Amino acid sequence: MSILETCRKARAASVVLAQLSADVKDKALCQMANALEANIDRILTANKEDTKAAKARGMKAAMLDRLALDRKKVENMARCIREVSALPDPVGEIIKTWTRPNGLVIGIMRVPLGVVGVIYESRPDVTSDSSAICIKSGNAVILRGGSDAINSNLAIGGVLRDSLAGTGVPENAIQVIASTERSVAEEFMSMRGFIDVLIPRGGADLIHTVLEKAKVPVIETGLGNCHIYVEEDADLEKAVPIIVNAKCQRPGTCNAVEKLLVHRSIAEKFLPVAIIALRKGDVEIRGDEKVVKIIPDAKPATEQDWYTEYSDFIIGVKIVQSLSEAIAHINKYGTKHSDSILTEDFEKAMRFIHEVDSAAVYWNASTRFTDGNQFGLGAEIGISTQKLHARGPMSVQHLTSTKYFIFGSGQIRK
Amino acid sequence: MSILETCRKARAASVVLAQLSADVKDKALCQMANALEANIDRILTANKEDTKAAKARGMKAAMLDRLALDRKKVENMARCIREVSALPDPVGEIIKTWTRPNGLVIGIMRVPLGVVGVIYESRPDVTSDSSAICIKSGNAVILRGGSDAINSNLAIGGVLRDSLAGTGVPENAIQVIASTERSVAEEFMSMRGFIDVLIPRGGADLIHTVLEKAKVPVIETGLGNCHIYVEEDADLEKAVPIIVNAKCQRPGTCNAVEKLLVHRSIAEKFLPVAIIALRKGDVEIRGDEKVVKIIPDAKPATEQDWYTEYSDFIIGVKIVQSLSEAIAHINKYGTKHSDSILTEDFEKAMRFIHEVDSAAVYWNASTRFTDGNQFGLGAEIGISTQKLHARGPMSVQHLTSTKYFIFGSGQIRK
Repeated sequence: MSILETCRKARAASVVLAQLSADVKDKALCQMANALEANIDRILTANKEDTKAAKARGMKAAMLDRLALDRKKVENMARCIREVSALPDPVGEIIKTWTRPNGLVIGIMRVPLGVVGVIYESRPDVTSDSSAICIKSGNAVILRGGSDAINSNLAIGGVLRDSLAGTGVPENAIQVIASTERSVAEEFMSMRGFIDVLIPRGGADLIHTVLEKAKVPVIETGLGNCHIYVEEDADLEKAVPIIVNAKCQRPGTCNAVEKLLVHRSIAEKFLPVAIIALRKGDVEIRGDEKVVKIIPDAKPATEQDWYTEYSDFIIGVKIVQSLSEAIAHINKYGTKHSDSILTEDFEKAMRFIHEVDSAAVYWNASTRFTDGNQFGLGAEIGISTQKLHARGPMSVQHLTSTKYFIFGSGQIRK
Repeated sequence: MSILETCRKARAASVVLAQLSADVKDKALCQMANALEANIDRILTANKEDTKAAKARGMKAAMLDRLALDRKKVENMARCIREVSALPDPVGEIIKTWTRPNGLVIGIMRVPLGVVGVIYESRPDVTSDSSAICIKSGNAVILRGGSDAINSNLAIGGVLRDSLAGTGVPENAIQVIASTERSVAEEFMSMRGFIDVLIPRGGADLIHTVLEKAKVPVIETGLGNCHIYVEEDADLEKAVPIIVNAKCQRPGTCNAVEKLLVHRSIAEKFLPVAIIALRKGDVEIRGDEKVVKIIPDAKPATEQDWYTEYSDFIIGVKIVQSLSEAIAHINKYGTKHSDSILTEDFEKAMRFIHEVDSAAVYWNASTRFTDGNQFGLGAEIGISTQKLHARGPMSVQHLTSTKYFIFGSGQIRK
């Protein structure tokens, strides 16, 4: 099937989806969850093909871990879909109404975006999560996963599509692009008028390629070079567990901390304690010159380190002269994802929150909370690090637009 | 000055602007308005250069009318700036806060986008309107107007920049690109990381060029192939003045009606009356076959007519079989701008409002109200016809993003 045909089918499905009641969509989501559980063997067989081929190509363990499914992971995918079905339906919400002096009643209503494109790498669970979030928000989705996971994605997509029979949700609400050709992906990113938003989910290379090639609106997601800044008046007993949690709990995630900035006046006292704790978690320390003076066996950090999202048990550590220097460093080297200040001073915290230009800015907490579920928003389709349309964790309400409706009784413009 | 340099200056100015109080910005806006009035002669002299050159090139009267300034138009620009200063400041607004079970307090705060790019044609008032809206919303603006208006734009930009001295708003909050080279415009549209959003204001060619060439986020604006659909149960006495107003009051605007759809059961009765009224306003009628049967001297409409935004005293008229056909026609041929149904039936009106996929959907009113001021939003920087980020008239609040702030007391993720 050509991309044009896929896009046309998605558009037609989106027109139906936009008018469905919450009840119809939620029942369909439950059928999708049930179908995943009923077809675990089919999905695992397809996944085994992918992992076998990936191992033969010498895929790294961390990547293989993301690609490989087991019974529990598929059950988890089903659980996620049920959670999405339990979220409130954003579509049709009347956000506001007001009356104009001429008697016109104007309102703002939440409506679906239409067709959502998702481009991702080797995580097959993105196929089911994205499908659920898009259907809940009344959008059709076109999924283009990486070639590593193609059999898994087609199997999951097939199971989900089949499960829609009789639900009222058209099966073309979910389409997985079967071709893994690069040219097909590029064609997909160029379907202006057919794709209302394209969301890349993956590493820096994927995101940059999409930004470079896309001719449809894109929401940039996920790169997280996150910082924790320890002010001179921080409560150091709170600070150590926050830093260790933010670095070690799941270092591969985008909300894990990558850089530790410490005010010079507490560096000599605090750093040795913090670094002992981090090293207990097997974290490699890369420090600036001043850090290396205090922690002589720390590896010297290069300029490139300050830009790098390690996604690993590594942390860059820098001593700064002031809150201003910390803010300037974060705004220069960061990725506008999640940054935290540890301080007991309200004014400093407020200054940090106002001036650090990131999607999520924390005071006295781990950066690991930047996540739809942790924020109480439900499942997420990505974390936007851009400013247009949506910023931070994106859940069902972020896959909507609005329309104005205007009720008149014959009004004309004077 | 290179585009890169311009962009860097804008970025630096945006960092200052983002932290300014409403008071500082509003005083600066008042100085800008005063300065325009104090420099009318300087602005009119520059504008005369532009109009003289345009006349020599044979510019059409309608275009010349948009380009030419007079004392009253400049005073009007000043008035617009004062109106913007009187709007509430969107920046810093706390949209929502909530507390999580672990005690984290999460909030959403409105923040500026950063740097706004505006690409426009020959209307010099866009220079001052856009500057005012951007400063009010805490954004730096880079303006790239058409070569026809370059002297006017540089004069207006110069007056506005000079007026910022001593206000606390950096003069680089407003920059007018002096070069009118096409290659410079293309470079401008490619400054990813420097331009947070690019807004094209102008005709179809300009908008398509920007969508094609831009590598920064764009908000599509303004094309309006707007429809009025007269249902069989419409109050025909209300209908005629609405249609005449929507077509004739200002046919060059994007919210003017371009197509009239009429239910077949009332066509023979209603069309002659409506068309007499439209022809009194010198409107040319282009009808489908069935219309031509009723109004023999109507010009036959071509397939292309249904897609066309005339922006002139012309209207396309079509007889449809049903509400469904009307909705399908609008969604196929329209530009997702403004469409109106005339009916006395609530259910039909609701179906039209839900199913017509446009920024503004009306019931029993003229489409001419799609305008920031008419909606009560204040001055507008354009009317978005896309679904991402903003839809419909865009005022100061649409030039903002949000950030999450999270207050903790040592929370770590379990």
